[in-house]
Amino acid sequence: MKKFDVVVVGGSAAGLTAAITARRHYPDKSIAIVRQEQRVLVPCGIPYIFGTLGKPEMNLVPDAIHDKNRLDLVISEATGLDREKKVLQTSDGEIGYERLVIATGSRPAMPPVPGFDLEGVYAIVKDVSYLSKLQQHIEAAQNIVIIGGGFIGIEFADEINKLGGKRVHVVELLPHCLSLAYDEDFCIAMEEIIRSRGVELVTGVKVDRVLGEDRVTGVALGDGSKIDADLVILGIGSVANIDLAKQAGLRIGLTGGLAVDLAMKTSDDSIFACGDCAEKISFFGGRPSPLKLASIAAQEARVAGANLYGLRRESPGIVGAWATAVGETAIATAGLTEEMATRHGYDFVSVEIGGVNRHPGGMPGAVDMRLKAVFERKSGVLLGGQVMGDQAVGELVNVISSCVQNRMRADDIAMFAISTHPALTASPIAYHLVNAAEMAIEKM
Amino acid sequence: MKKFDVVVVGGSAAGLTAAITARRHYPDKSIAIVRQEQRVLVPCGIPYIFGTLGKPEMNLVPDAIHDKNRLDLVISEATGLDREKKVLQTSDGEIGYERLVIATGSRPAMPPVPGFDLEGVYAIVKDVSYLSKLQQHIEAAQNIVIIGGGFIGIEFADEINKLGGKRVHVVELLPHCLSLAYDEDFCIAMEEIIRSRGVELVTGVKVDRVLGEDRVTGVALGDGSKIDADLVILGIGSVANIDLAKQAGLRIGLTGGLAVDLAMKTSDDSIFACGDCAEKISFFGGRPSPLKLASIAAQEARVAGANLYGLRRESPGIVGAWATAVGETAIATAGLTEEMATRHGYDFVSVEIGGVNRHPGGMPGAVDMRLKAVFERKSGVLLGGQVMGDQAVGELVNVISSCVQNRMRADDIAMFAISTHPALTASPIAYHLVNAAEMAIEKM
Repeated sequence: MKKFDVVVVGGSAAGLTAAITARRHYPDKSIAIVRQEQRVLVPCGIPYIFGTLGKPEMNLVPDAIHDKNRLDLVISEATGLDREKKVLQTSDGEIGYERLVIATGSRPAMPPVPGFDLEGVYAIVKDVSYLSKLQQHIEAAQNIVIIGGGFIGIEFADEINKLGGKRVHVVELLPHCLSLAYDEDFCIAMEEIIRSRGVELVTGVKVDRVLGEDRVTGVALGDGSKIDADLVILGIGSVANIDLAKQAGLRIGLTGGLAVDLAMKTSDDSIFACGDCAEKISFFGGRPSPLKLASIAAQEARVAGANLYGLRRESPGIVGAWATAVGETAIATAGLTEEMATRHGYDFVSVEIGGVNRHPGGMPGAVDMRLKAVFERKSGVLLGGQVMGDQAVGELVNVISSCVQNRMRADDIAMFAISTHPALTASPIAYHLVNAAEMAIEKM
Repeated sequence: MKKFDVVVVGGSAAGLTAAITARRHYPDKSIAIVRQEQRVLVPCGIPYIFGTLGKPEMNLVPDAIHDKNRLDLVISEATGLDREKKVLQTSDGEIGYERLVIATGSRPAMPPVPGFDLEGVYAIVKDVSYLSKLQQHIEAAQNIVIIGGGFIGIEFADEINKLGGKRVHVVELLPHCLSLAYDEDFCIAMEEIIRSRGVELVTGVKVDRVLGEDRVTGVALGDGSKIDADLVILGIGSVANIDLAKQAGLRIGLTGGLAVDLAMKTSDDSIFACGDCAEKISFFGGRPSPLKLASIAAQEARVAGANLYGLRRESPGIVGAWATAVGETAIATAGLTEEMATRHGYDFVSVEIGGVNRHPGGMPGAVDMRLKAVFERKSGVLLGGQVMGDQAVGELVNVISSCVQNRMRADDIAMFAISTHPALTASPIAYHLVNAAEMAIEKM
């Protein structure tokens, strides 16, 4: 029987980062990653395979990283777990461990909608050959319907639309696309951009069934209308892969993820979990959070990996920071939107501010940038921010995320030591985040 | 005699921001800006007049901002100050005040080098007609020598070089350009880029004199060599404009700026100061800081403006965060470099890390990004970071600045809630700042 000090099940954002972190913190331990995939896809890159990257093979996590970090790689399916004996069962035999990290990720949600089992209906499975098959089907298809208008749905739609000559629909149950991440005004602005690029958005309507005999021919909606389709892609969320954990009797959390404490330890002292398979706790109020993001997976993995042989870190909880881009426009969010803050029960002040992202406004790359910030009213603490503009928004949202994580107050942010430059940012006088803080103070 | 509750002397980054902040915090007060310029230039945009923007008139702060914030504008030179009577003397008469904000900025340093008074030698004066004259001269010139290889010198050189058909030299006293902002390796990388674009850099040598009878013909260097020149531009720093303050008997600080406390109050309880004319205190250790930046001016102005009728804010001190860009490459810094940390007396750990700014690496816009972070060894507190890469570096450095301002430790940064996206940032596994923190922990 093989044996390693540390065995990590899963080789994507969570598993790989947990193993690298373990290597950094425990240089003398033997560490193995057990994964079932021959090749691991960059999870967030999957939509970009179809328009920008060209094929799944262009979207792989480089395996050289294992050698660089002295990680053993075992390509095998984890089939069972004997916690008493500290043995992981795999399709190729048993592997002993001292510490186990479960990072088995998630799989697409498959609600029991009639027709979801027809040929020509694809979920987003993180598998190279599955996605190659999907790609061939996309290239041949004329009418493509994407069910779900969240990040993944929108990114798939825009990428497929880039191929040209296809009719692409997105069907979203909620009144607006992206509305689990942004307030309505930001969603509407983004919907306008997506539509202007030729994607058709159908919102506020449910999918009754996918039509067809053997193969999909269309989608029937709750309002009685139909959309022709020779290909349907489901982008409607994901569920934690907890079969291994469940079978081993580990505690499962309220949202269906593997229960963990702040150290990312499961109900077994030798077993940690991180990433999409693990239950998450919100940074705001400490309740379970349904968010699943690769960046959260990596964050949790850096906690789990450091704690394997002694607690060194406690997870601060899930802030929720993410971004997407359509064409030249990027949109990003960190922490709470107004709608989320209301739902959490905060008394808050919200400020929205526009203005050019360069100074003077005639500098190349100048676009109108829009930022909304939400502050708790009494304390002035920043709860979250949404921002839309050029590509630098991808890092600007990390400024917001940092302020949120540090529980900065509006008054602190008003004294933020900003770096500004004519060719790169808004002016120091007009810098959006700082001015939003000042305007929030006026309203408190 | 005119009288306002609040009179601000100076209408650039500091003065204008102080007035806007005063308006926000004191909605019922009358507020006037007294400035001598008909039109105010965006200070950091000045180099970009010559290549990118086309003329000084394309680089103005829009005056509409005064109406929008109910600010009276008095275009007049401040000539004296009667603190007893609370009266500002101007070239057009007296103006009474309850609170005065001195934001008179800085002027170019003019060391007593022989030939600096010749025709054809220009300093960077923030004046539209002066810069128009300089622009005409630049367009006619063949051989241009820029003395000083800091941000301004480099930006002027690159912009002038874009015009084509000119020989542009930068002469820098220190061994490397930009070395007051970056460690040597970053300076060298940036020098290579600047040189590759056709600008000639002469470093580690002093200017002995500017040659010529009436008009400049060349520059004689300390190593005995000469450079032909029909135009010389000085970018060798600036000195605080404190004539008004000095004449009024206000206390002056160690670095020659107007002395202020943490509230930005001068030695007179009714008079505040901010921006280039005000003495600065470092965030690190509290000693005077020689930095003068528009973003610092705006930060101080937000402290001064809020405190006019009751202390609401205290300046956290000068972190020092700024950026520049040459072609597609941006470079930025926040807080301390290794060299500065050594000078301050810190025991530190420094980590430098490279890697692509997209994921997967085949995404459009992918370039190798380089980040260096400096942590105090015992506490793990982040002291500063330097970063070089694409334009998003302009906001990424604000993430670093935020971490510095919040005195985040390497361990906190290892658990940073990052937003990542294939088209916008590095991957969550490889995100530079977080990995630099992890690597620093290994070295502590």
